[in-house]
Amino acid sequence: MIVEDVSLKERFLGVRKKTVDICSRLSPEDHVVQPVEEVSPPKWHLGHTTWFFETFLLKNHLSGYEIYHDQFSFLFNSYYESVGERVIRTNRGNITRPGVEEVLNYRKHVDQAMSQLLDGGLSDDLITLLELGIQHEQQHQELLIYDIKYILGHNPTFPAYLEEKSKADGEVSPIGFMTIEEGVYSIGHQGPGFSFDNELGRHKVYLHGYEIMDRLVTNGEFLEFIEAGGYSYFRHWLSEGWEWVNQNEIKAPEYWHKVNGEWMMYSLRGGLKPLDLHAPVTHISYFEADAYAKWKGLRLPTEFEWEVACAKYGEISRASNFVETEQFETKSAEGKNNQLYGDVWEWTSSAYLPYPFYEAPEGAVGEYNGKFMVNQMVLKGGSCATQRVHIRNTYRNFFHPHLRWMFSGLRLAKNTKTT
Amino acid sequence: MIVEDVSLKERFLGVRKKTVDICSRLSPEDHVVQPVEEVSPPKWHLGHTTWFFETFLLKNHLSGYEIYHDQFSFLFNSYYESVGERVIRTNRGNITRPGVEEVLNYRKHVDQAMSQLLDGGLSDDLITLLELGIQHEQQHQELLIYDIKYILGHNPTFPAYLEEKSKADGEVSPIGFMTIEEGVYSIGHQGPGFSFDNELGRHKVYLHGYEIMDRLVTNGEFLEFIEAGGYSYFRHWLSEGWEWVNQNEIKAPEYWHKVNGEWMMYSLRGGLKPLDLHAPVTHISYFEADAYAKWKGLRLPTEFEWEVACAKYGEISRASNFVETEQFETKSAEGKNNQLYGDVWEWTSSAYLPYPFYEAPEGAVGEYNGKFMVNQMVLKGGSCATQRVHIRNTYRNFFHPHLRWMFSGLRLAKNTKTT
Amino acid sequence: MIVEDVSLKERFLGVRKKTVDICSRLSPEDHVVQPVEEVSPPKWHLGHTTWFFETFLLKNHLSGYEIYHDQFSFLFNSYYESVGERVIRTNRGNITRPGVEEVLNYRKHVDQAMSQLLDGGLSDDLITLLELGIQHEQQHQELLIYDIKYILGHNPTFPAYLEEKSKADGEVSPIGFMTIEEGVYSIGHQGPGFSFDNELGRHKVYLHGYEIMDRLVTNGEFLEFIEAGGYSYFRHWLSEGWEWVNQNEIKAPEYWHKVNGEWMMYSLRGGLKPLDLHAPVTHISYFEADAYAKWKGLRLPTEFEWEVACAKYGEISRASNFVETEQFETKSAEGKNNQLYGDVWEWTSSAYLPYPFYEAPEGAVGEYNGKFMVNQMVLKGGSCATQRVHIRNTYRNFFHPHLRWMFSGLRLAKNTKTT
Amino acid sequence: MIVEDVSLKERFLGVRKKTVDICSRLSPEDHVVQPVEEVSPPKWHLGHTTWFFETFLLKNHLSGYEIYHDQFSFLFNSYYESVGERVIRTNRGNITRPGVEEVLNYRKHVDQAMSQLLDGGLSDDLITLLELGIQHEQQHQELLIYDIKYILGHNPTFPAYLEEKSKADGEVSPIGFMTIEEGVYSIGHQGPGFSFDNELGRHKVYLHGYEIMDRLVTNGEFLEFIEAGGYSYFRHWLSEGWEWVNQNEIKAPEYWHKVNGEWMMYSLRGGLKPLDLHAPVTHISYFEADAYAKWKGLRLPTEFEWEVACAKYGEISRASNFVETEQFETKSAEGKNNQLYGDVWEWTSSAYLPYPFYEAPEGAVGEYNGKFMVNQMVLKGGSCATQRVHIRNTYRNFFHPHLRWMFSGLRLAKNTKTT
Repeated sequence: MIVEDVSLKERFLGVRKKTVDICSRLSPEDHVVQPVEEVSPPKWHLGHTTWFFETFLLKNHLSGYEIYHDQFSFLFNSYYESVGERVIRTNRGNITRPGVEEVLNYRKHVDQAMSQLLDGGLSDDLITLLELGIQHEQQHQELLIYDIKYILGHNPTFPAYLEEKSKADGEVSPIGFMTIEEGVYSIGHQGPGFSFDNELGRHKVYLHGYEIMDRLVTNGEFLEFIEAGGYSYFRHWLSEGWEWVNQNEIKAPEYWHKVNGEWMMYSLRGGLKPLDLHAPVTHISYFEADAYAKWKGLRLPTEFEWEVACAKYGEISRASNFVETEQFETKSAEGKNNQLYGDVWEWTSSAYLPYPFYEAPEGAVGEYNGKFMVNQMVLKGGSCATQRVHIRNTYRNFFHPHLRWMFSGLRLAKNTKTT
Repeated sequence: MIVEDVSLKERFLGVRKKTVDICSRLSPEDHVVQPVEEVSPPKWHLGHTTWFFETFLLKNHLSGYEIYHDQFSFLFNSYYESVGERVIRTNRGNITRPGVEEVLNYRKHVDQAMSQLLDGGLSDDLITLLELGIQHEQQHQELLIYDIKYILGHNPTFPAYLEEKSKADGEVSPIGFMTIEEGVYSIGHQGPGFSFDNELGRHKVYLHGYEIMDRLVTNGEFLEFIEAGGYSYFRHWLSEGWEWVNQNEIKAPEYWHKVNGEWMMYSLRGGLKPLDLHAPVTHISYFEADAYAKWKGLRLPTEFEWEVACAKYGEISRASNFVETEQFETKSAEGKNNQLYGDVWEWTSSAYLPYPFYEAPEGAVGEYNGKFMVNQMVLKGGSCATQRVHIRNTYRNFFHPHLRWMFSGLRLAKNTKTT
Repeated sequence: MIVEDVSLKERFLGVRKKTVDICSRLSPEDHVVQPVEEVSPPKWHLGHTTWFFETFLLKNHLSGYEIYHDQFSFLFNSYYESVGERVIRTNRGNITRPGVEEVLNYRKHVDQAMSQLLDGGLSDDLITLLELGIQHEQQHQELLIYDIKYILGHNPTFPAYLEEKSKADGEVSPIGFMTIEEGVYSIGHQGPGFSFDNELGRHKVYLHGYEIMDRLVTNGEFLEFIEAGGYSYFRHWLSEGWEWVNQNEIKAPEYWHKVNGEWMMYSLRGGLKPLDLHAPVTHISYFEADAYAKWKGLRLPTEFEWEVACAKYGEISRASNFVETEQFETKSAEGKNNQLYGDVWEWTSSAYLPYPFYEAPEGAVGEYNGKFMVNQMVLKGGSCATQRVHIRNTYRNFFHPHLRWMFSGLRLAKNTKTT
Repeated sequence: MIVEDVSLKERFLGVRKKTVDICSRLSPEDHVVQPVEEVSPPKWHLGHTTWFFETFLLKNHLSGYEIYHDQFSFLFNSYYESVGERVIRTNRGNITRPGVEEVLNYRKHVDQAMSQLLDGGLSDDLITLLELGIQHEQQHQELLIYDIKYILGHNPTFPAYLEEKSKADGEVSPIGFMTIEEGVYSIGHQGPGFSFDNELGRHKVYLHGYEIMDRLVTNGEFLEFIEAGGYSYFRHWLSEGWEWVNQNEIKAPEYWHKVNGEWMMYSLRGGLKPLDLHAPVTHISYFEADAYAKWKGLRLPTEFEWEVACAKYGEISRASNFVETEQFETKSAEGKNNQLYGDVWEWTSSAYLPYPFYEAPEGAVGEYNGKFMVNQMVLKGGSCATQRVHIRNTYRNFFHPHLRWMFSGLRLAKNTKTT
């Protein structure tokens, strides 16, 4: 974790402000809708991240704290069964009141009370909960970006969220491979910084020798797959992927549109614009990532292969400038950028399962990670929507294989030839 | 039709203003959601009624008129297949942009152009289309009230739309019956005022002698049905009604809530408040109306029976003050109020079918009514959400038998005993 | 009703034998499946018609009668809520045991007990129930034919149920119209023969003058509608019909197949064979019937118009030979056959609603008809699958507007021109 | 693999006969239904296993071979996209013709042709295909047992498939644990016998020290979980498991029924009978296995942990008599039976993913395994329905986590305490 020289209170208030900043470019109407199940209304994120601090810190630990509104716990709980009834996920988009203004007031109310609590000093247990709340809010900042892109990108007028920036227009480098020797490696987080429970329990894995691409697959390369008929030949696809392609009539990544014979893409920067062939392909499902790999005669790396490669080769990427939202640079200032950190989340071939020494924490926070460990795949590396301080080598993101509204992409791997 | 001493332009502008007025009590967030399929976002109503004038009058008849935005036709068409592709009904609630402000600008743009067109004088054909547009907008004003009630009434905070008014607290009158003799009667609209195509073709029907209640069934009376176990005994119910009750776990009319053992109702006036036992029962489906009638050993009237009774007895109701939105009076100033006009739409036992001489008009306006003539039931009389000038004896409203978000209620009928 | 000179017991046993005869051409496997919700397994019909006599006659009226198997009531009840829990309709096709042999034993057991009961003489009440049971079984004989056609006709090998017969190959007559004068007419059944409760309560209706086709619409005529693009132009269709056409990709009546550019039809007689252009079109939904009528610029008759026309003109059809299963003759021996009785059920434009004096009987048999009086349309005249003694002028058949696995067809009507 | 001293032809014919034997206890009606998506009609298995030999061996390799029926390829293909159109899985239960007799004729036709082919001698490639066909048919023999149990066990009369056998009524042993040291182990199949492609590519894994139960969890032990409220407390459950429990109102393993307060179970042996507390719990989903483990404070083993433990400790189980269908013995003749082979398939905590060196074979047989490698979990050990020669240490069975119509059970594991 990148260490920041700021007080805990400053960090807390900074993160809280950031969430509001992200929403400041939205109209009130943009805050309220839930166009598909996986997208939550921005207003809900504003409320839910606030509810977290109210429920887990203020309610029991700030004497004299008054709950802002007794209905809000019902509204803004997400999936914590321990904390009582909640609005069913698919109904979140019907709640017009409280409006945005009132939810922002709720935030102020909680932030003031939190300042008071922080000024009084926190026990170690509360610092742990506060840290979790901060990390939790950073995760929701990322989800907010996904959801905003979905909401704006599905309006018929394709409004931009940010202005287009000019950028260094380097050619994309030819594909190379980074090599890892066969052997026993250690996986998982080891203190002292923050990590989620699912990264803990550093343990050993045996890896056979492999090679892994030194940059991400680009839009241009993915376009070749499309043009080769990749979406209409079953042999590339997992059986459930083939069903998904056919039932949903998938023909390209999310946000790609063929307009008058030309491929366009919707971007938060600049709205609808010509496909950027050099940018990493993104908004693809696991099914698409896996099909592309099969078509190329290669495979996705496991999460362990990715983590070990990143531990060895990630510094180039880490040192270069992190990308801002949808502002991809194909080369760093220093030359080749291996894009291991912070461009797009990279699908791995690993299912999201507990590490050997995994233990879910006691209490409601024990519902944070462990109960999702089935039917999802691991993604590594962080994306252009991830807060920089939130990215680390051991971070295990996870999504269902059919989802693609997040910034997801891929790099390929292969076994080392043994002669 | 009540004749109004105003110019066509004044009428037009008055109706247009009324729609905006109805929405003026809403937040931007309230304008955008579609919580269930039958509810449209208020913003959509604002746009759709405007689109009607732009499409059917301005586009071809005002020289030099410029379409406000070429995407709006796609957004705000409802079900006119003749006029091209439209946003699927269930997706209307995802469109956050254009926002409310821009849709109000669209209204201004069209109203100014319409004023210009009106100032130039209209041909008879255009007057007919204008009249249809006005009536169409009045219908949407009524739907707006239903939809607003649904949106506000499904927020967990139950916000009121209007303030409660004090009212004359008369006891409800005992039930009496109005009598009609056996014979041949005429049904349907006969000029000169406006009517929809489905009311035209005045024709004869034969009615056997019958009696019909001289007021509506009240909440208090419907409560007796609930307390007698009416929702849990299959014999009262149509087979499809019984399925509907069980699949949706229906236990009471829409907007009724049992809170701490007491029956409450959500009203546009005053929000959640104790059930008004003297007000007409409303927000019931055809299935509930029919089950109640069977439980009472009576039946619903046919649309023909209702229309003939109203022709004979409706003047009392017409003369008394029309109810305002959810402001029911059980007695008129003059004494008994038979509530035939303007309290709640009354379910009849008639399916919505063409009259013997029915002919759908040519062109897109021919899609207005005729294509819905299957699987729906006729309701008569107008409701507290209907514009007064929009109510007439021959008006045929129609809804699917399971719907109840509109102001729907009932009165009962029986055959005259022959001795 | 055609009076038959046979004892009640002979009639009972004859009807019972007929059901078994219908099934005798099936394999055990054919008896057990339920390919779509509306089709019941033939074995279920065998059991259900037997259950009717056991439940309503033997159980309470034959002293010493022993229930054949205590699970069978659960298995073979259809929709009588009064008589306890039943197998959900969509699960009927999973019940492999009891097998066909055992269900036939169940029939024998019940038939023997019924013979004993009949030998002892019946009270008037029991005669009424017996008559209802006989009529009920005749209705199921007809449903059996529909269901057998569906089951065999959806096997990839298209097995025939009966052999093809040679037939008189008359040209079809040109369309003529039968005329009815404006006036008051009586509708509904009047003793002394049997009728269902929904036909009772003879009452008056007022009919404006109309004309009605003197034969049915043929396959050849319906083919013109298809070739004119009838299934792909929305203006002919009711809104729900248009949805149904598109969601189900309907392009022709059920059982029509285009094979190598030629239209074929599956028939119980002879299996898959070339479309018979002169036979009445059948296996069409109400939506298709209505769309065809609109395309022709005519309309469907109401059930009242049909009944009055049949009362006046039906004898020609009645006198001619009834068609056997799918053995249509376009002309009778005596010349023109107006096909009012017994070819295909004719869609009318009337919704299935109670007659003015309708009263549902007390007890479980009260569930026979009344509870289905919503969202269905009336058909008149009987079909080639209807038992001849089961056809009468006042019979009201009814189906949902999207169904078409029954022998349904149409004739058109128009208003008499008034000069 | 157990080596059998029989010729290839004898083995082939023996396996073919076994499939027919399994079905010989069924009525024709039992052969045809598909009560839920995952269950295939027994007749379909009879046809599909035959189609395999016809398609992959006879069609191209026996000169002069005539296809039995050109529709059968369409009917009996399962999921091989390479081999053309197939009957959609959920429609398999509607095909009544060809009947059982004809499908048995199809089997004879193919078996005779295969004998002829075998008599002529086979190339190595054909021997490989033949072996795959034999293994494939053995897999379907197992599925047949599952499907027959589902079909019979969902008839309201609960018919038995086999008679109950008396058995040694040993007490179940107390739970002990088998220990494995930390280290690098080898996983996967290594010649010379048969294996599926998904077992190939023997490779190394690193295992931390662990202990694994020395027998399976019993019905009696699982009953304690139920009685402790295990199905109604969310903390034991994966999030998707909790949804599954609630949506399907799961309260116990499949085939358990509480009758008059007593727990009963449906068994192929003897039909409905009192719950056998000493038999291994079976017919549980992954969700239930995982919830049980969490409730006990332990965990499921990974597939690698299971395989390594079986390699070390499996011989006891292998040496003892294999269980016959649903004939479980809690102790072997030699004393404790660790039940690693052949009682019930044991859920592991491993997702079904490719091994590091996995390669799907070319051609249609490449669709056998690889395309299912997402969203499924691995089970190990074989069940009482598995052919004995079909069981081996490296076998990887796989099912979706919600399924439980197969004989699935569990044993628990824990990490070795490090002091």
